Amino acid sequence: MKRVKAKVSYDGTDYAGYQSQPNMRTVQSVIDKALVKLHKDKTVYSVASGRTDAGVHAFGQVIHFDTPLDLPPDRWRMALNVLLPKDVRIVEVEFVDEEFHARYSATGKTYMYKWSSSEIQSPFERNYAVHLGKWKPDIERMREAAQYFIGTHDFTSFCSSKTATANKVRTVRELTLVEQGEELIMTIEGDGFLYNMVRTIAGMLFAVGIGWNEPLDMKEMLEAKDRKKVGKTAPAHGLYLMNVTYNH
Amino acid sequence: MKRVKAKVSYDGTDYAGYQSQPNMRTVQSVIDKALVKLHKDKTVYSVASGRTDAGVHAFGQVIHFDTPLDLPPDRWRMALNVLLPKDVRIVEVEFVDEEFHARYSATGKTYMYKWSSSEIQSPFERNYAVHLGKWKPDIERMREAAQYFIGTHDFTSFCSSKTATANKVRTVRELTLVEQGEELIMTIEGDGFLYNMVRTIAGMLFAVGIGWNEPLDMKEMLEAKDRKKVGKTAPAHGLYLMNVTYNH
Repeated sequence: MKRVKAKVSYDGTDYAGYQSQPNMRTVQSVIDKALVKLHKDKTVYSVASGRTDAGVHAFGQVIHFDTPLDLPPDRWRMALNVLLPKDVRIVEVEFVDEEFHARYSATGKTYMYKWSSSEIQSPFERNYAVHLGKWKPDIERMREAAQYFIGTHDFTSFCSSKTATANKVRTVRELTLVEQGEELIMTIEGDGFLYNMVRTIAGMLFAVGIGWNEPLDMKEMLEAKDRKKVGKTAPAHGLYLMNVTYNH
Repeated sequence: MKRVKAKVSYDGTDYAGYQSQPNMRTVQSVIDKALVKLHKDKTVYSVASGRTDAGVHAFGQVIHFDTPLDLPPDRWRMALNVLLPKDVRIVEVEFVDEEFHARYSATGKTYMYKWSSSEIQSPFERNYAVHLGKWKPDIERMREAAQYFIGTHDFTSFCSSKTATANKVRTVRELTLVEQGEELIMTIEGDGFLYNMVRTIAGMLFAVGIGWNEPLDMKEMLEAKDRKKVGKTAPAHGLYLMNVTYNH
């Protein structure tokens, strides 16, 4: 058996999220279906670095799976892409040793969150950026607020109340806000993220940007360790999983 | 009655083309449905500068319609956008005199055709650019071929054999090929285009780029006035209607 690591890009628009669910079209289910086909109907399950929600996109999701088949990495990529729908693409394949685990070996993740300040929302960005409409967030205030998230914190206030994980301490190593033309792009990098954590941070930075909150509120909200103290989660379709890092 | 001119942008992916057809989701049908709703169920028909095929996009389609309603242009735009699906947007509205006609008053049109040379087709470009894959067209050869289309010609060889229009003489005023990162963009401007004319020209420029045809073949093909002498039409999803010009 060989362990295969693959980097996956997908447009999450037409998926009910990453993880397989009965009777739902999910990214994992189309990948596993392609794997089963390549293995002549023998069941093969892929393991991802983590799930993403319905509508969330990826440039650099990482998966692994084990296979008895003997194909070079490029052929793996091409064979899977022939079987996959065009909104899911395998962009890279490599062999890894059996200690590698897409989820447990991950040492960091990078997400991007995208807003658009175009006057009228373009039909071409409707699923790929959150339209700011009449809102003109103050980027400097957002940058000031962002500083409170950097470092190691208990993120209980900034994840879904449905988060199952007991340990809610995470380290955010980088959090930047950059304007590119009509786009406002938040990039966040850390050792790992709780369920809805990136979207909750994005939602609160937006709230600071438009004056609903003060930058310093972020500090108090983190210290409160109470999801109820924090406002709305930002919409799914602005979020992209960019990269997963490993020590290997 | 007032005549309203509106500029429309749409993502053609989920539409069976521009023009209304029974039991099909078309761009015109969703626009006319919104107009009927705004006019309290009185039938209002819009007239466009021309139809576009299934999968073809627009940044600057132009329509007109007549209305007894008294709304300022900005309110027209907002009222229609509230009723329209998000893949169709009214980007501009102005009042015009009753001699204005979206189709018959048009003096020129600009189309864009987009190819992508990314190694692996991105899930995000699958409906918005034609993936070149292993093909590496020679842009200089394409530019040389493009020169033969500029000017006034009979384009019988370069339109669909189903074209109903009798007069197939058209003037191409500009035809450029530009590389932007991993994209190859053809822009064509002229007084008007026959059915499938832009896609047939794009298909033949590609054929020249990859060596299937010589640039000089374009001249012979034009002179032959025979669609059967010309190769395949390029796919719909690379095509965008950018702009329609009027004398007013």
